[in-house]
Amino acid sequence: MDSEKTVTACVLIIGNEILSGRIKDANLSYIATGLASVGVQLREARVIPDVTETIVDTVNEMRARYDYLFTTGGIGPTHDDITAECVARAFGVPLIVHPASRRLLESHYKPGELNEARLRMAMVPEGAVLLENPISQAPGFRIGNVHVLPGVPLIMRAIFDAVKPGLAGGDKVHSRTISCSLSEGTIADDLTRLQARYSDLDIGSYPYFRRGGSGTSLVFRGTKPERIDAAVAELEAIIRGFGDVPRQEDTAAMTE
Amino acid sequence: MDSEKTVTACVLIIGNEILSGRIKDANLSYIATGLASVGVQLREARVIPDVTETIVDTVNEMRARYDYLFTTGGIGPTHDDITAECVARAFGVPLIVHPASRRLLESHYKPGELNEARLRMAMVPEGAVLLENPISQAPGFRIGNVHVLPGVPLIMRAIFDAVKPGLAGGDKVHSRTISCSLSEGTIADDLTRLQARYSDLDIGSYPYFRRGGSGTSLVFRGTKPERIDAAVAELEAIIRGFGDVPRQEDTAAMTE
Repeated sequence: MDSEKTVTACVLIIGNEILSGRIKDANLSYIATGLASVGVQLREARVIPDVTETIVDTVNEMRARYDYLFTTGGIGPTHDDITAECVARAFGVPLIVHPASRRLLESHYKPGELNEARLRMAMVPEGAVLLENPISQAPGFRIGNVHVLPGVPLIMRAIFDAVKPGLAGGDKVHSRTISCSLSEGTIADDLTRLQARYSDLDIGSYPYFRRGGSGTSLVFRGTKPERIDAAVAELEAIIRGFGDVPRQEDTAAMTE
Repeated sequence: MDSEKTVTACVLIIGNEILSGRIKDANLSYIATGLASVGVQLREARVIPDVTETIVDTVNEMRARYDYLFTTGGIGPTHDDITAECVARAFGVPLIVHPASRRLLESHYKPGELNEARLRMAMVPEGAVLLENPISQAPGFRIGNVHVLPGVPLIMRAIFDAVKPGLAGGDKVHSRTISCSLSEGTIADDLTRLQARYSDLDIGSYPYFRRGGSGTSLVFRGTKPERIDAAVAELEAIIRGFGDVPRQEDTAAMTE
């Protein structure tokens, strides 16, 4: 019962528009939070441009290194949608028209509307499993440990939410966040000692500067809730020792 | 005058909290936009955890591959602020207390308050140049082609804005965005031919799904504005040919 099972993942964000700054990525934190909820630990994310060699090499490097790879972006009917053909190349398999996807397109478009470009949306690496897209006509797909998702957040979320329950997660990582009005420098030495005593936990320290005052948020992360509770109790004593009052914070995703 | 000068950069976001989904990165698009404005092209971004080996290896890989590397996160007084020591290790130099930074801290804190933890904020790789922090007491620094910035957006922006004018940029990349109500599939074949005729430009196609209707945004990017204008004129004719009206869009950063 005590052996830990760690399942890892990485996210590959494919898109010139994120790198140019024109569009802000809105997918990473959603995927990160969703993976954590099923016991999959996101270990790395990369943003890369729409360049064939870069995509092929990065897919191969990351699918070998992590249990799961999720890509976003670059699936669709236009010339810059090259993710499917790059993933096919990475796996060394041909790009084929998926029969189910073709039928879907044929039922959606009027005769004559299903042009060559639109048929590109039905093209997947041979052996890939379609991931149903409830919103538009470009399905995602899975091949091996690689999930290929669209970049449009609305659609990405719908497909990811459907995929999530089927992921084989490991031990869930629990977390608690305690905030205080003390500066990082005030409690840093005590935190170092606390982290040393709780080496099975990951204790993060994050200064905040908000209207209404500044302070520090301490995040405790680990697979054993009782260890987190014990470390939090010690931290609260440390904070009170400096004359401040610890505050339990919601651990939902937040922007700094 | 016609030879192109390309200057590249990458961003390394260091922080468990981005990968856990607790905090949304708010720095990448800011840096991307800022770099573009001075003729530096952001080619890649990575998000990695607070793990020494990972940081050291990634810093060395990326500083060799790109003209500039910008890191965010992990500078401060607590045990999990390991960026400075990792960068020192990557460069093979010792971590030292910077005299100017120490003086700054000594003038800021009352006698006795400048503890060992706070003195960590003055530690930089030997040979590093301080990047003044107008908001808190942890300066960023530059060593070689690596700029080390804090993760708190308010402070990161202040330091980055001061650094930006001094970057040696190449040819600026200009961009124009045209939107229409047509679906990607409708114009995809024409776009493919347009991209082939304007191979010196990068034409991106991005479907949007908003209240008020869906459609496609086309982004033209390149170093020669007159080439962009010519391609845009052709695109506008294509859009009109399908009975739709092209709309010029603001190219400021947007969230999908």
